[in-house]
Amino acid sequence: MKSARKEVSAVPRNAAPWPIDSIVAQLRTLRVKSLEARSRGDRPPRLPSRKALAGIVDGVSAALFPNRLGSPDLTDAGVDYFVGHTLEVNLRLLHEQLTREFQFSSGLDRLSDVDRERAIYVTHAFAQYLPKVRSQLESDLVAAFEGDPAARTVDEVLVCYPGITAITHYRLAHSLYCLGAPLVARMISELAHSATGIDIHPGAHIGERFFIDHGTGVVIGETAVLGDHVRLYQAVTLGAKRFHADSSGALVKGEARHPVVEDDVVIYAGATILGRVTIGRGSTIGGNVWLTRSVPPFSNVSQANALDELIVDGSGI
Amino acid sequence: MKSARKEVSAVPRNAAPWPIDSIVAQLRTLRVKSLEARSRGDRPPRLPSRKALAGIVDGVSAALFPNRLGSPDLTDAGVDYFVGHTLEVNLRLLHEQLTREFQFSSGLDRLSDVDRERAIYVTHAFAQYLPKVRSQLESDLVAAFEGDPAARTVDEVLVCYPGITAITHYRLAHSLYCLGAPLVARMISELAHSATGIDIHPGAHIGERFFIDHGTGVVIGETAVLGDHVRLYQAVTLGAKRFHADSSGALVKGEARHPVVEDDVVIYAGATILGRVTIGRGSTIGGNVWLTRSVPPFSNVSQANALDELIVDGSGI
Amino acid sequence: MKSARKEVSAVPRNAAPWPIDSIVAQLRTLRVKSLEARSRGDRPPRLPSRKALAGIVDGVSAALFPNRLGSPDLTDAGVDYFVGHTLEVNLRLLHEQLTREFQFSSGLDRLSDVDRERAIYVTHAFAQYLPKVRSQLESDLVAAFEGDPAARTVDEVLVCYPGITAITHYRLAHSLYCLGAPLVARMISELAHSATGIDIHPGAHIGERFFIDHGTGVVIGETAVLGDHVRLYQAVTLGAKRFHADSSGALVKGEARHPVVEDDVVIYAGATILGRVTIGRGSTIGGNVWLTRSVPPFSNVSQANALDELIVDGSGI
Amino acid sequence: MKSARKEVSAVPRNAAPWPIDSIVAQLRTLRVKSLEARSRGDRPPRLPSRKALAGIVDGVSAALFPNRLGSPDLTDAGVDYFVGHTLEVNLRLLHEQLTREFQFSSGLDRLSDVDRERAIYVTHAFAQYLPKVRSQLESDLVAAFEGDPAARTVDEVLVCYPGITAITHYRLAHSLYCLGAPLVARMISELAHSATGIDIHPGAHIGERFFIDHGTGVVIGETAVLGDHVRLYQAVTLGAKRFHADSSGALVKGEARHPVVEDDVVIYAGATILGRVTIGRGSTIGGNVWLTRSVPPFSNVSQANALDELIVDGSGI
Amino acid sequence: MKSARKEVSAVPRNAAPWPIDSIVAQLRTLRVKSLEARSRGDRPPRLPSRKALAGIVDGVSAALFPNRLGSPDLTDAGVDYFVGHTLEVNLRLLHEQLTREFQFSSGLDRLSDVDRERAIYVTHAFAQYLPKVRSQLESDLVAAFEGDPAARTVDEVLVCYPGITAITHYRLAHSLYCLGAPLVARMISELAHSATGIDIHPGAHIGERFFIDHGTGVVIGETAVLGDHVRLYQAVTLGAKRFHADSSGALVKGEARHPVVEDDVVIYAGATILGRVTIGRGSTIGGNVWLTRSVPPFSNVSQANALDELIVDGSGI
Amino acid sequence: MKSARKEVSAVPRNAAPWPIDSIVAQLRTLRVKSLEARSRGDRPPRLPSRKALAGIVDGVSAALFPNRLGSPDLTDAGVDYFVGHTLEVNLRLLHEQLTREFQFSSGLDRLSDVDRERAIYVTHAFAQYLPKVRSQLESDLVAAFEGDPAARTVDEVLVCYPGITAITHYRLAHSLYCLGAPLVARMISELAHSATGIDIHPGAHIGERFFIDHGTGVVIGETAVLGDHVRLYQAVTLGAKRFHADSSGALVKGEARHPVVEDDVVIYAGATILGRVTIGRGSTIGGNVWLTRSVPPFSNVSQANALDELIVDGSGI
Repeated sequence: MKSARKEVSAVPRNAAPWPIDSIVAQLRTLRVKSLEARSRGDRPPRLPSRKALAGIVDGVSAALFPNRLGSPDLTDAGVDYFVGHTLEVNLRLLHEQLTREFQFSSGLDRLSDVDRERAIYVTHAFAQYLPKVRSQLESDLVAAFEGDPAARTVDEVLVCYPGITAITHYRLAHSLYCLGAPLVARMISELAHSATGIDIHPGAHIGERFFIDHGTGVVIGETAVLGDHVRLYQAVTLGAKRFHADSSGALVKGEARHPVVEDDVVIYAGATILGRVTIGRGSTIGGNVWLTRSVPPFSNVSQANALDELIVDGSGI
Repeated sequence: MKSARKEVSAVPRNAAPWPIDSIVAQLRTLRVKSLEARSRGDRPPRLPSRKALAGIVDGVSAALFPNRLGSPDLTDAGVDYFVGHTLEVNLRLLHEQLTREFQFSSGLDRLSDVDRERAIYVTHAFAQYLPKVRSQLESDLVAAFEGDPAARTVDEVLVCYPGITAITHYRLAHSLYCLGAPLVARMISELAHSATGIDIHPGAHIGERFFIDHGTGVVIGETAVLGDHVRLYQAVTLGAKRFHADSSGALVKGEARHPVVEDDVVIYAGATILGRVTIGRGSTIGGNVWLTRSVPPFSNVSQANALDELIVDGSGI
Repeated sequence: MKSARKEVSAVPRNAAPWPIDSIVAQLRTLRVKSLEARSRGDRPPRLPSRKALAGIVDGVSAALFPNRLGSPDLTDAGVDYFVGHTLEVNLRLLHEQLTREFQFSSGLDRLSDVDRERAIYVTHAFAQYLPKVRSQLESDLVAAFEGDPAARTVDEVLVCYPGITAITHYRLAHSLYCLGAPLVARMISELAHSATGIDIHPGAHIGERFFIDHGTGVVIGETAVLGDHVRLYQAVTLGAKRFHADSSGALVKGEARHPVVEDDVVIYAGATILGRVTIGRGSTIGGNVWLTRSVPPFSNVSQANALDELIVDGSGI
Repeated sequence: MKSARKEVSAVPRNAAPWPIDSIVAQLRTLRVKSLEARSRGDRPPRLPSRKALAGIVDGVSAALFPNRLGSPDLTDAGVDYFVGHTLEVNLRLLHEQLTREFQFSSGLDRLSDVDRERAIYVTHAFAQYLPKVRSQLESDLVAAFEGDPAARTVDEVLVCYPGITAITHYRLAHSLYCLGAPLVARMISELAHSATGIDIHPGAHIGERFFIDHGTGVVIGETAVLGDHVRLYQAVTLGAKRFHADSSGALVKGEARHPVVEDDVVIYAGATILGRVTIGRGSTIGGNVWLTRSVPPFSNVSQANALDELIVDGSGI
Repeated sequence: MKSARKEVSAVPRNAAPWPIDSIVAQLRTLRVKSLEARSRGDRPPRLPSRKALAGIVDGVSAALFPNRLGSPDLTDAGVDYFVGHTLEVNLRLLHEQLTREFQFSSGLDRLSDVDRERAIYVTHAFAQYLPKVRSQLESDLVAAFEGDPAARTVDEVLVCYPGITAITHYRLAHSLYCLGAPLVARMISELAHSATGIDIHPGAHIGERFFIDHGTGVVIGETAVLGDHVRLYQAVTLGAKRFHADSSGALVKGEARHPVVEDDVVIYAGATILGRVTIGRGSTIGGNVWLTRSVPPFSNVSQANALDELIVDGSGI
Repeated sequence: MKSARKEVSAVPRNAAPWPIDSIVAQLRTLRVKSLEARSRGDRPPRLPSRKALAGIVDGVSAALFPNRLGSPDLTDAGVDYFVGHTLEVNLRLLHEQLTREFQFSSGLDRLSDVDRERAIYVTHAFAQYLPKVRSQLESDLVAAFEGDPAARTVDEVLVCYPGITAITHYRLAHSLYCLGAPLVARMISELAHSATGIDIHPGAHIGERFFIDHGTGVVIGETAVLGDHVRLYQAVTLGAKRFHADSSGALVKGEARHPVVEDDVVIYAGATILGRVTIGRGSTIGGNVWLTRSVPPFSNVSQANALDELIVDGSGI
């Protein structure tokens, strides 16, 4: 015991008793092996930056709702300058992130001229899409206000509701997904997922007046299609059933494998709808329902005899 | 192809190829139209700030538990100065956020004298309520410590458990809700929701010694009433059944529509209890139970024949 | 009414109308009483800092994946310097947090020499474990890439997938848990829980090639054991059934009370598996299944007649 | 000796051995006495904030030279949005600082309506003066470029030369001084003084094409008047001689007591010119000259026989 | 030429063309050699931190003048909490910096118990000295207000005048110098020197009602003694003449080698007073005077025939 | 009066009463005119960033003196990693700033390949020069320690003395100046000038063991040459006499126009030496001396009869 203590007291204040050199060497070996395994040589191109994208989403959101998400002190004389400046800065930053994605997916050492052009065109198209996003979000806000007995004003919905945060991220990410930037789109979706517990894949198609209440645990898959005026509660899954594997055992990618939800459907908390089924318009799906087949328009689906399934062993007074 | 590249190379380093002016103009049109739709003119008053409220909750929490959530280096001689200073700063900041809520809900251009007084009185009452909040949280901490086999000390529970974070936010938000500041209260609840995945409406009434374990996905509705010594696990919903709409189709607001949970009830993960039902004291609700009717005191509710419902297609050795 | 306003207008700009002194005194009384109740005297030792641990996990992760999670501009000539420097800084910081835990759990006024040594040895052992963590995470990344039809590259998985964030935290926390630092380990797990909604107790044993998709609501308990190549979806619970209380009513701590999941098992969203049961290797557990008994290898478990349980009241066209 | 050590070891980790309570009390007594001495009661109004003014000067400078002092990445499409937004924000902030000065100098408890109006009008006038400031600064930049053999480009002068920093602060401060905000003006001057060692009172009148080289130690007094195209080197003082005291011994304030320097004058390093004297146009004042009388136009003033005054005791080889 | 370009283009994006390894090795060799030369082994103890001291001076200044240098929003109810909390935090931080100085000057590997005690006692004594510092600074403020025709209020002097910044740093540093912490004292003085260009050695003794106007270039040496009510202008030097060297050529340290300036003396800009001379009380020393002998009380010293020394070659009209 | 107030009260909370649009337009006109005047078109290339250079100098200084200017907690095992990582990061950043200078001075729209190569080569050469800079600074530190009776240790000199800050900046800037990056070099010099009041042009040549005491107001010109072991005090100027203008009136640039100071010279405070004169080795120049001719080695130069020049009008008791 004494010798152990001696060893420790022999560790001077400024010496690290942990073997940095050896760990650095081992990690280098692992890195090299891993890079070789992916036959990518030793110069991995940059990925888009999660932190930069978080700033861009905040900036673009502020440009869309300058008084509420930008600066509360904006004057009328200043608001357009704010919007223009904020857009200009954030589109430039987005453009840079897009060049990273395109170079990354090209696998080339340098950004090709074609990818440089793509980044400009995608940013351009995204910019032009923004007024439409603002309109859609207006419709979502009204839907939330009308759909929640607890909501007092539309403004309150905008600043309070995690569902709105998730839908804003989704609508921005979806336009980038459609424009051919799936990685940036996915990273934006994950920002919302982390903040709200709502996981909407940017590939999903979602109509106007969309509302998610509470939201924690909602999952909407890549090929899901939702009509207008759909309302979801927490923990609703619109997912795939099992995945198909090809003969080699690899998963088949890209198939339409998630539900179609038509207009004016309400799906209550915990319902799970799996596979390429269709929920007809005007239907209501009850809480915790497990559904893997289509239902016609105006259906009301609920758990059978929910109460009978329970064993109530009450020994009350 | 060549012409396309020419166009790009004609884009000078400093010119934005995206049409900022046009987008700014479109967004302005949308903003004006949206403001008109809400007949609010062009001068929207400020909303409370989410970021400011996050700081206030952190500050007040630090004043309640100065050694654990404030500064670990506080000396005995310094702790009251810390508490007093922290309270003074954060009550002042809270007062400002309350004036924003009151002016916002008044719809007036300027803060009225009545609302100014209200903000002072509400801050005052909130401050006086803090010792009681501290006592309640002590009881919650003990409940968590006693309720989780993995907990080693009460201090560990305070700094580690997301349930405690959620309950602290709830207890502060609830007092503001009761004092007539529902928007600030709601924003505080959403801070906890985002951090923990636990969504407790500030309108709910919750007794002492409350414990939520794991917590992700828990939802407790606005009119829920929980007695003392209730214990919940992750993904428990205490929600409304369907909402009532009036003859015009608008949702009826304010009704008691969420469960009453009496003292000493335990509700296991994933259980869903909906509507104004009563769970009698001492009851235990099993995991994933779906319950929409009242049960008497000391009930044990669980899924019937859970195993029989499963198709086990085992082709094991 | 007039007198009330007068009182307010008598409140000068610089006076706080809230009774700070009285609240400070009440809070002091509560603090003292609470400390006495825990017979800890008036000098609570420091706990580890959540914020410091967050920085340490980020730093160590950057050292493990320097190009992806460190700095994208690292040159080949610089990468080892980055790794070595980042490790050196963060191991030193971890060492400090470990001394806090050991002093805290010792309950002594000062750090004992034994605890000082322990902190050095634990940091040392943790450091040596890092190359193995990197290898395990490589296997997890490949599993995620192969298991998700939406994943395009392994790098994308590393920066996008919340499951990977949670597993990285778990693997680091688990090694600290095994080395006798359960509090620091738990705090690291809670960082991932807050960011991802995935709650893996650092005590669980998890093999290689582990993948969690979506993940919100996943709970894995302290004594769970998972083999290699397990795949989980969102809201899967691997939990305890009810806890045993001893004759005094206190919960029995430390028992093996969570499931064993063997190699090559897939568990779909919302499945709940409780108690010390074993899921045989190669099994598939369907979505929302509620399972409290063991199943043999290569079982396929799914909800019986899921469709028959539903009441579909369709009044479609 | 032993007892002293005992006393120290009796100081527990968490107790402060310094007597905070007593010092707080003593400082309170001093504060109250000091406030009484100035018969200002206990509610001192706010002063303008040095830090806020530093930000405002940076912001306004960026609006004047957006590519050089704003953001180097500004595009042509974005520059006006940047300028407008930056102006809007910083004029609003300046307005707030002006209200502080006016309330402070009024000595009233609340901002009077008259002072509120003044703050708006002064901000307005300041804003309209900005294009003129930009023109003057252009002329100063050209003067610096032409006056320093070491300067390579006008842009380099703008970003490198402390003289330009000082003159920019002066020109902004001077306009505020003329508009009746001497305190804010003085605080802006002191920002430049601290950064450059150049102390120009905002009350001085200075023409176009002004250049200060090196600059450390330059002092220009409140009532100094400088024509166009004046060039100064480091440590030049344009000061008052002795101050006049009235019969009560108090200094007489406000008199013209600093030099008049006409157009096209050069003053070399260390020259000291005191009192209300006039340096005629086109004159050159040599280094270290001490001058307290007027000189006619086109004078060359230098130290007589500078060399004869020296005792050179050379014992060289 | 072509080969050179080829070499460059062969530099891949991620490789540094600069030889880091070799430079690191050379710097290590130099460090080791340098440490050996000072026979200090390889474990240099920590020095106090300039940045930490800057924060401490700001904190203590805020405690001395809470409304002006602390927070402008402090209420009467909150000000003592602010003062107490700010003192407590900054005395603790000062204590840590003092332990660094004492360990450094001891040359030991660890802080000795004696030095630990010293740090506590010095902090304690410093704390008790603070009310006196506040009183002295009050007298300095009044002196500045009375001594400058441009000053409007005492508050303005406090926030605007670099002389007050320098004197505040001096008074705090001087008390630490007297208490045996010359290094921390010197570092505090240098903070003021950098911010104001005023260099007051913390060893100097300076009475009450001290005023420095403009101040850039003022130097006051270690053994200077200034009485009450002294007024200095910019670029005044109170320095040593030549230094004495002992027989080995080393400078003799510690001698009284700077001027004594008695009460009520005014020294105008640029005057240089060197050596252990005495300026009798009530004297006035003119600008740019070079003085190396004592002068009796009530002297008026000025440059002889300043005008006759000038060659004025005026070819004016 | 009433109408004025009405106008103000008509200013709604959110409208700016200052005419942003008009000022933006005027500023644009001025910018365009100014750019045209310099025939540079509308796309000014980026200049190096002052803030980035400040970070680079701090980083490189930390690499040179890692324990003192880097991190005080560095362990022996970690110090080379720190040095290597810090160098790698800061050389990369320097490289970017150099490309800005080279593109700027080329006046081209894009960085040419030649300039890209230059930036790499200059960074490379600068890196290789660093060990020599460290050696020179060691000699400067020793000179300061030996030259100042107040200095206690070499380490104290390194962290306290503004002269060392200025010399460090100079030595780094000088190597960049010699390598053809005069703008970056100048900006680095100005950083030291602002922090210390010491203005050393990066073009000057300065030998080893250089010491500046106090330093405020020191100016050393572009073509000055200083030998080894030179010591300067505050406010010493080594400047040019008057500048020569060519026939067109433009200043002639590049001439050797500043003093040569040979080895072992001491120059006391306030001395001014102008023109291409030579101060022979071993000479001492007294305070406030004004010198415009050469002096032989081992001269002692001081002001003649300094005392006789003074009028002492003493009316002492």
